[in-house]
Amino acid sequence: MNYQMMRYVLGQIFKVGAALMFFPLMVSLYYRDEGMVPLLVVLLPLLFAGYGMTAKKPTKQNIYAREGFVIVAFAWILLSVFGALPFVISGAIPNFVDALFETVSGFTTTGSTLLTDIEGLPMSLLMWRSFTHWIGGMGVLVFALALLPSGSAQSMYIMRAEVPGPSVGKLVAKTQLTARILYEIYVFFTALEAVLLRCTGMRWFDCLANAFATAGTGGFAVLNDGIGGYRNVWVEVIITVFMLIFSINFNLFYMLLIKQFAEVLHNVEIKVFFIIYTTATLLITQNIMHLYHGSFWHAFRYAGFTVASLCSSTGFGTADYTLWPAFSQTILILLMFCGACAGSTGGGLKVARVMILCKSGVSEIRRQLNPKLVSTVKLEGQVVENEQIRTQGAFFILYMIILLVSTLLLSMDRYGFDVSFSAALTALNNMGPGLGAIGPYGNFADFTPFSKLVIIFDMLVGRLEIFPVLIAFMPRTWKKA
Amino acid sequence: MNYQMMRYVLGQIFKVGAALMFFPLMVSLYYRDEGMVPLLVVLLPLLFAGYGMTAKKPTKQNIYAREGFVIVAFAWILLSVFGALPFVISGAIPNFVDALFETVSGFTTTGSTLLTDIEGLPMSLLMWRSFTHWIGGMGVLVFALALLPSGSAQSMYIMRAEVPGPSVGKLVAKTQLTARILYEIYVFFTALEAVLLRCTGMRWFDCLANAFATAGTGGFAVLNDGIGGYRNVWVEVIITVFMLIFSINFNLFYMLLIKQFAEVLHNVEIKVFFIIYTTATLLITQNIMHLYHGSFWHAFRYAGFTVASLCSSTGFGTADYTLWPAFSQTILILLMFCGACAGSTGGGLKVARVMILCKSGVSEIRRQLNPKLVSTVKLEGQVVENEQIRTQGAFFILYMIILLVSTLLLSMDRYGFDVSFSAALTALNNMGPGLGAIGPYGNFADFTPFSKLVIIFDMLVGRLEIFPVLIAFMPRTWKKA
Repeated sequence: MNYQMMRYVLGQIFKVGAALMFFPLMVSLYYRDEGMVPLLVVLLPLLFAGYGMTAKKPTKQNIYAREGFVIVAFAWILLSVFGALPFVISGAIPNFVDALFETVSGFTTTGSTLLTDIEGLPMSLLMWRSFTHWIGGMGVLVFALALLPSGSAQSMYIMRAEVPGPSVGKLVAKTQLTARILYEIYVFFTALEAVLLRCTGMRWFDCLANAFATAGTGGFAVLNDGIGGYRNVWVEVIITVFMLIFSINFNLFYMLLIKQFAEVLHNVEIKVFFIIYTTATLLITQNIMHLYHGSFWHAFRYAGFTVASLCSSTGFGTADYTLWPAFSQTILILLMFCGACAGSTGGGLKVARVMILCKSGVSEIRRQLNPKLVSTVKLEGQVVENEQIRTQGAFFILYMIILLVSTLLLSMDRYGFDVSFSAALTALNNMGPGLGAIGPYGNFADFTPFSKLVIIFDMLVGRLEIFPVLIAFMPRTWKKA
Repeated sequence: MNYQMMRYVLGQIFKVGAALMFFPLMVSLYYRDEGMVPLLVVLLPLLFAGYGMTAKKPTKQNIYAREGFVIVAFAWILLSVFGALPFVISGAIPNFVDALFETVSGFTTTGSTLLTDIEGLPMSLLMWRSFTHWIGGMGVLVFALALLPSGSAQSMYIMRAEVPGPSVGKLVAKTQLTARILYEIYVFFTALEAVLLRCTGMRWFDCLANAFATAGTGGFAVLNDGIGGYRNVWVEVIITVFMLIFSINFNLFYMLLIKQFAEVLHNVEIKVFFIIYTTATLLITQNIMHLYHGSFWHAFRYAGFTVASLCSSTGFGTADYTLWPAFSQTILILLMFCGACAGSTGGGLKVARVMILCKSGVSEIRRQLNPKLVSTVKLEGQVVENEQIRTQGAFFILYMIILLVSTLLLSMDRYGFDVSFSAALTALNNMGPGLGAIGPYGNFADFTPFSKLVIIFDMLVGRLEIFPVLIAFMPRTWKKA
């Protein structure tokens, strides 16, 4: 274990974390609210710690998969702890576990909230809460890679551990440049959404906060009534479109940028994603129409938004789907499993991974008929290697084990099976709302602290795609080689 | 496709099916009830068809995996259709889909029932219903193999498609002898249980019916109040012990028989199974104690029986666990996933398969740290081959796909997510009861015919472990090579 290098990279991340906190600090100066002191109290030590830890350059800069996983896991946990402190110090969320829940929910782009009166938060902390979605969406370490001149050639290990999806395609030879391109696309679309929202007459504060929450596919709203609170169909249309945009593999936007249109046209994952989106929307529209006085367009408006919200793992709400029929709710649960495209900011298993899993299932049926058959699984025209199939199979197994064990632990709380199960599922897939009491207009306030810690663990495990968190806490990782 | 051989083997199975129907016919003669004519009306054509189809020996006796799967799937479907007819003809269950549901539930040893007044059935049909559990438990084709002098060396393909668990260990070189030994053990334990139940003062009819339902890990009761209806703690103890006995890999009993005690002592699966049983029982006992006036023994009595009932996938009930806390219900759901040992008559994923899946998950974590590592998964001291790991991974994926799609289809019915999900889960694992309205004291009568067909499909897919049913209905199977 290269402890020197771990200290150094974590220090860099602390500096980036402190720099990012300047943004809500500016907001608090603008609104002259009570968020200023709490933000400063956290920002300054973080900055000093960052400079202290990076003062001495490490002599050996080599890091491997092991260090990559541990750095990513630690960075996320430590930044979440620091990020939660302003809420505690300001008294906005006095309980530390609650504040940590809210912050982890922000960074992991889950969007599950404990707050009953969101509008009661100071403006600066409200913005910090939404901003955590934006930071977490693309990944704070990818951000660090994009900004800082890092000499380490092994930074790929960090990126691989943080970027969602079964595989990371480097756009260009240098990891650092790849990270920068990804962030430029990310900034562009976020700004575009904010400007478009502004055109609907929304105040700038809400435009920014909602754009951050959409970009990270997070789901924190700034109104108590969620996105439905704006009572504006154009707001819903814009957010629906951007939720879908941020569910798409960012590599495809880069391909568009460098005019490789064929790559985009022949991409199978995006086609499957939109087929899923359209089918689910139409099925639910048909299923809920009777609840909206038989109006197709009325039902379509709510179904289209909700399906985009859950496909992308954002979790914004305009309608309370817990009042919809069981068939619609079950479709939404299946969407939670599936999630967005690989390489997007969305959560869930990812469409590409689900495709690999399904295809390997079908290929096994063929192999049962003819054991000598060399059955290959193809994705995007390329053969998926056996190693990769095995990895994705094991990933799915670990995912299911964590899901079921979490459901068991959460069922010790006051809720029934459906709420416990959907709480674990929504956390693990970084979705936001669940069924019953934790629906889009419910909240997670009534869970016990123990349940909240289980959900915090699930959100982190889900965002970092299982391996980093498990590996960081395995004794074997810390043994000398 | 060797159609001649398929016809011949199916004919043999029809003959066996007709022979097995003689038993309820005897019962109807003894009780002089209205089951006699309906049973005869089905038995005779079945017998004639059997003799007709086996009159001409096939010239080519070679069959392969493909024929094995198709024969098994067809045999189960056709025998279920024939088995359902006496219920329809007698008017006991006038609707054909309902009668088919009850019969498939019997043969697949699920034990889910549509009947509200079980005691209202004629004695002979009540016995036939319980007897289907016994036939389905060990497998009707294995039975055919055991009885009939079959010259086909490829009968292993049939056995492999019907016996539960990730792999079939042939006890002795000849498939036919293996099948016979298995059935001898099966008959011995069934008889032993019946005799022990008789010692509690139960009437012979109930002794036999309950022994059949236990042996097949089915769960059909002959009293409206289930096993709880006997109000006798010894009945519960005996049935608990035998539910556990029939959850154990039958190969181990053979090992005891030929005095290979070391094999049994070092078996890991059975240890894990009993650890799961004990842990689940104690956790639930502690969790439900307050419902039984704080009495440990009272709670332990119900928990011990219910856990054995769900571990073994029998589904007998002495207590209504739908009234227990969510924690206990979630434990029971996890037990449904896990199921009994491989090579037993029990359902579920099987302990051995769950162990392989978990171990391959853990081995993947290790491989993430060190991609060059040749990580091996061991079970029972032997290395599990990569092929086998891949097969089990794919099996689990297909299992989850079928589970989730079935849940979606069932959610179109009148029930909420928890009932729809547990209906699919309980059917796919051949368990019997589910949550809510389909709990141990509820029934499946109120589902729509479409839902009942989905559940019938799930029960068959679960009993035959996915591949045979899927393969039988794939167009590719029927193409010429």
